[in-house]
Amino acid sequence: MKLGGVATRSIWVEPDGWSIGILDQRDLPWAITRIVLRTAADAATAIADMATRGAPLIGATAGYGLALGLRGDPSDAGLADAFARLAAARPTAVNLRWALDRVRRAVAPLPPSERAAAAYREAAAICDEDEAANRAIGEAGLPLLRAIAERKQGEPVNVLTHCNAGWLATVDWGTATAPLYRAHDEGLPIHVWVDETRPRNQGALTAFELAEHGVPHSYVVDNAGGYLMQRGMVDMVIVGTDRVTANGDVCNKIGTYLKALAARAHDIPFHVAFSGSTYDPATADGDAVPIEERSADEVRTVPGRGSDANGNPSTGSILVTASDVRNPAFDITPAALVTAYITEKGVLRGWQELRAAYST
Amino acid sequence: MKLGGVATRSIWVEPDGWSIGILDQRDLPWAITRIVLRTAADAATAIADMATRGAPLIGATAGYGLALGLRGDPSDAGLADAFARLAAARPTAVNLRWALDRVRRAVAPLPPSERAAAAYREAAAICDEDEAANRAIGEAGLPLLRAIAERKQGEPVNVLTHCNAGWLATVDWGTATAPLYRAHDEGLPIHVWVDETRPRNQGALTAFELAEHGVPHSYVVDNAGGYLMQRGMVDMVIVGTDRVTANGDVCNKIGTYLKALAARAHDIPFHVAFSGSTYDPATADGDAVPIEERSADEVRTVPGRGSDANGNPSTGSILVTASDVRNPAFDITPAALVTAYITEKGVLRGWQELRAAYST
Repeated sequence: MKLGGVATRSIWVEPDGWSIGILDQRDLPWAITRIVLRTAADAATAIADMATRGAPLIGATAGYGLALGLRGDPSDAGLADAFARLAAARPTAVNLRWALDRVRRAVAPLPPSERAAAAYREAAAICDEDEAANRAIGEAGLPLLRAIAERKQGEPVNVLTHCNAGWLATVDWGTATAPLYRAHDEGLPIHVWVDETRPRNQGALTAFELAEHGVPHSYVVDNAGGYLMQRGMVDMVIVGTDRVTANGDVCNKIGTYLKALAARAHDIPFHVAFSGSTYDPATADGDAVPIEERSADEVRTVPGRGSDANGNPSTGSILVTASDVRNPAFDITPAALVTAYITEKGVLRGWQELRAAYST
Repeated sequence: MKLGGVATRSIWVEPDGWSIGILDQRDLPWAITRIVLRTAADAATAIADMATRGAPLIGATAGYGLALGLRGDPSDAGLADAFARLAAARPTAVNLRWALDRVRRAVAPLPPSERAAAAYREAAAICDEDEAANRAIGEAGLPLLRAIAERKQGEPVNVLTHCNAGWLATVDWGTATAPLYRAHDEGLPIHVWVDETRPRNQGALTAFELAEHGVPHSYVVDNAGGYLMQRGMVDMVIVGTDRVTANGDVCNKIGTYLKALAARAHDIPFHVAFSGSTYDPATADGDAVPIEERSADEVRTVPGRGSDANGNPSTGSILVTASDVRNPAFDITPAALVTAYITEKGVLRGWQELRAAYST
């Protein structure tokens, strides 16, 4: 998608042909800072310190990280060392391990002299496949938006989204945002309601993305969605997801469920966009999903940059009392509230269609 | 309620017997700053600059402000001048005008020498009546909490509240908080889920109140309520309201409606606490209520105090893009989602009981 007017991916090979560029997402949306990775250690640090984020993008970064490591030391020992270092960067990230395994499988049988080049090819393939999947999500979602646009006869289609399931969290296009970018590029009039998404305010990232690409949007607090639906200002909800269980329940950023309930109350379509790696048929339903509870500090303070800041992000403290703070990070949206799943396999409805699409 | 361990009202006559003390609510919860009002102009400034807030408390402050003015100049001209100055402080505040009219009516027929004392008495009566109404709300709500406590056999009753309908916004007790304080003082085990209430984070005031009074509570982002209800962690919702229409629809702080929908989805009682001045039988229903849209700056930045602050509240900036920002301040909770109204006239169900209670 566009950044500073130029089509950009969230990860790229630098003009020197081998070092890897990423955006420092800790600085977003306050500043656009590019980081150049030259070693596996650089990549591991970028992942561990959350300079890069989003499951697909972490996988891509790890894949290129292994290529960087092999460029320095293509021996079996070098491969093992780079693999271990990258795998330890964020131990619970499924995509990270998946990407590392995939690149290692591709290069391990080769003579050391050919390993680095093969690793670059495999990492590039991971990126291209992620982009292709998200592009396909965009294609699948486009007719849904077009149908509303036709009904509204030129009035903008108002889509509400929660959190950041955008291109910054993937290689390009994003998941929930893919149909929005696709529709906008197609010339459909759309307008996006961007939920702030406390406590980490990922809505600010979504607003940043949409602003850079030129998609009309409005930023609202998480409390506003019910009112917007009540007054007829939302035509569709599209969110991403961290996990879709066998029965179609959707685990996504805390607050998603409240919007799904409100959408149902007002007969507004509620769509969940994802690609296959997010589907988890091994988990029966949402009740079985453990909900991560994160640090209270995320709630006690808010990310932001004060007007007196000298370039470093500052945070404001909200609470002063010793009040207990709870910070559940996700909630479950029951399958019954999901109108359809927008995937790289097309628009799927109900768990039967999910299972059929991903069983092969 | 308790502040620093001492039973405190939000407005009081100072030990000198005539000047008026209030808390500077702009500093809360970061610091407890007391302000002494000595003139009608002091009171007008405190209201206009929002050092004092909450409809009942603004009324009480205006009443005492008129007394302060009459103490300086009890002539007809002095009365008119103080009245005009106070009435202009926040032109749309209904309680302000109501309190001023009431005090003026009480003092205008009197000889100037008796006016100041009569104004103090009338302002004190306004305060006492507000406290009594809120205390009655507490009494009315207590049995609802007790019934749940009995069912839970010693486990805490979990109550979720939104915004600050607490004693800081009234003279004492608050509205939504009155049953909570009453139950806590009675020894019932209760625990309060405090919604942050973006964009102005009034939940931090509620947390401050509850912490000072010693009521167990947890502060959560507005997104968390659906999850908490989903996992059985909420027994009851109690909120305040800015206006209850003839049909029982409830206009309250933005985000209330989302919690009402979630409460209904999980069969959790949803209660609205208020006293009579909030009931508006002249407005048919919530559709007829204009929703105030406030400044985008409230959303773009967040109130907080940075760790490097030198004592002044600092704000953090969340957005940097030129993104449109919308900031509706209230939403409507349809009467059908309200289990009961907890009022100074008792627990009322449905618009018929509301009308009957307030028609005399």
